[in-house]
Amino acid sequence: MEISLEKISDILKDNDDFYILTHQYPDGDTLGSAFALCLALQKMGKKAKVINNENIPEKYKFLQSNVKSQDFEPFFFICVDVATAKLLGPNLEKSYANNIDLCVDHHRINEKFSKFRYVDPNAAATAEIIYEILKIMKSPIDKDISNCIYTAIATDTGCFKYKNTTSNTHNIAADMINFGADIFSINKLMFDSKTKEQFLAEKNILDTIEFYFNDKIAVICVMLSTLRKTNADDTLVDGIAGIPKQISGVKIGITFRQKEDKVFKISVRTEENIDAADICSRFGGGGHTNAAGCTLFGDIDEVKNKFLEHVSTFLK
Amino acid sequence: MEISLEKISDILKDNDDFYILTHQYPDGDTLGSAFALCLALQKMGKKAKVINNENIPEKYKFLQSNVKSQDFEPFFFICVDVATAKLLGPNLEKSYANNIDLCVDHHRINEKFSKFRYVDPNAAATAEIIYEILKIMKSPIDKDISNCIYTAIATDTGCFKYKNTTSNTHNIAADMINFGADIFSINKLMFDSKTKEQFLAEKNILDTIEFYFNDKIAVICVMLSTLRKTNADDTLVDGIAGIPKQISGVKIGITFRQKEDKVFKISVRTEENIDAADICSRFGGGGHTNAAGCTLFGDIDEVKNKFLEHVSTFLK
Repeated sequence: MEISLEKISDILKDNDDFYILTHQYPDGDTLGSAFALCLALQKMGKKAKVINNENIPEKYKFLQSNVKSQDFEPFFFICVDVATAKLLGPNLEKSYANNIDLCVDHHRINEKFSKFRYVDPNAAATAEIIYEILKIMKSPIDKDISNCIYTAIATDTGCFKYKNTTSNTHNIAADMINFGADIFSINKLMFDSKTKEQFLAEKNILDTIEFYFNDKIAVICVMLSTLRKTNADDTLVDGIAGIPKQISGVKIGITFRQKEDKVFKISVRTEENIDAADICSRFGGGGHTNAAGCTLFGDIDEVKNKFLEHVSTFLK
Repeated sequence: MEISLEKISDILKDNDDFYILTHQYPDGDTLGSAFALCLALQKMGKKAKVINNENIPEKYKFLQSNVKSQDFEPFFFICVDVATAKLLGPNLEKSYANNIDLCVDHHRINEKFSKFRYVDPNAAATAEIIYEILKIMKSPIDKDISNCIYTAIATDTGCFKYKNTTSNTHNIAADMINFGADIFSINKLMFDSKTKEQFLAEKNILDTIEFYFNDKIAVICVMLSTLRKTNADDTLVDGIAGIPKQISGVKIGITFRQKEDKVFKISVRTEENIDAADICSRFGGGGHTNAAGCTLFGDIDEVKNKFLEHVSTFLK
């Protein structure tokens, strides 16, 4: 059932013993939203705990630093930034998917798997909605909560660069600064730091760049051997798929990412008037208009030739 | 003479035939401030023109797209984001330095070279002050003006990442979005695009990375031969000096940039508790606590050894 933010505020006030669930492979928004809400509930004298399917990535660990560790039997289950029950991850899905009381989310397609639901696809981040709830509940917002909310909206908007950024996003960032958010340290940690392994892996990956069709297509390859050589893991190079398309004049940027022997995940980024999802659908893939993907099988040269031949027909 | 924003508003209303001067090697803030003010004055039915010491860099040219080209004898001279007369650049300095009526700036050290002056070092960008002036003048702010102001504040804050970003900065960004600023295209152009030459030059420069003293110092070298090989020019790699320090565990990041045969400009970036200006002062250089520079003479190995030996004493 869809409910209002006012109703959510009433429900949270009337209940206790909250488990707050994040999506798997947790990012800044799911974690920032969860810890902001958890901190606010604890400040109201309630028991609350954030539950994840797996470990929290190193760079987000500071978000939980002032959360009290509380042991209790959970009574009310909330999930934040989780579009489908499956996205809770296998462990949480098995234990909790059928018991979710409230889901707060901003994904356009939110599966109706919770008792109560509030979904606003115009919110740049779920944390924007959490902030609205805290305002309605008149929760005092301290430095810790503001750090959580700021981290969530900064990461989900690529530091205010992506299309989802609205004037409300910026106004919330302004409020968080006024509440004490340490934005300089957060931005440095989120956007301007990488491990030595990540740096070396990225450097080696950039070295694979090739240009085709009068520089209209740029291609990079992420081979497992490169990751192994630099002790980097697959998640360390997540941001790299956007790089070929950043080069002026490139209409289609392609990343071939080896998942195992003879299996390549292909990421395609295109300029405005070329449909990336259409390109990838030929091989059973899909995605958005300007960012899509598919999987191809074979050795790198086979896969590359086959895919480039197909892609070239979209340059006309 | 220091004057108030209200006084500036009165002066602009009472005068006409404005030349608006930017600083040399113009950046987003000086250009965005100048074109925003120029557009607003033209909308008030006045004659105004932006004057630069050199050509406007390609990526900022869109800022002037709806500025009317007007020919007139200048009567009132304004400079924006210009801290000293010398920074006007040799051409503008010679022609106008003694005639500046009004200087609007946000640099902490602003030389008193204009008749009237308004300097606010707490403004993240000069465009924040320009926006205040436009509000006081009740100038209607359209898409073009909002694009100029947004570009200025986004570039001067590294897209809201740097320490100078305040809640006011974010509130202004929110206002600009409401006035129609095309922030997605601007952010893409400012932060997520590079020429092929720039990409290849950066890639080659990253390949020079070396780690010293248990990875506490990271070093990259920008040799003229690399720039020549990739047809890149010196300004294309401006952002690169920050890269070595971005690697986790690196306390001092150093960039050796060859200016000519046996002449190296050295950029030093340090973590919080190491004084970069102090490091560079030994060789007659200086700068800020965590970002400073100096120049050394010799071939690359000589310069590198000499500087690293000196720097290593700061790791204790």
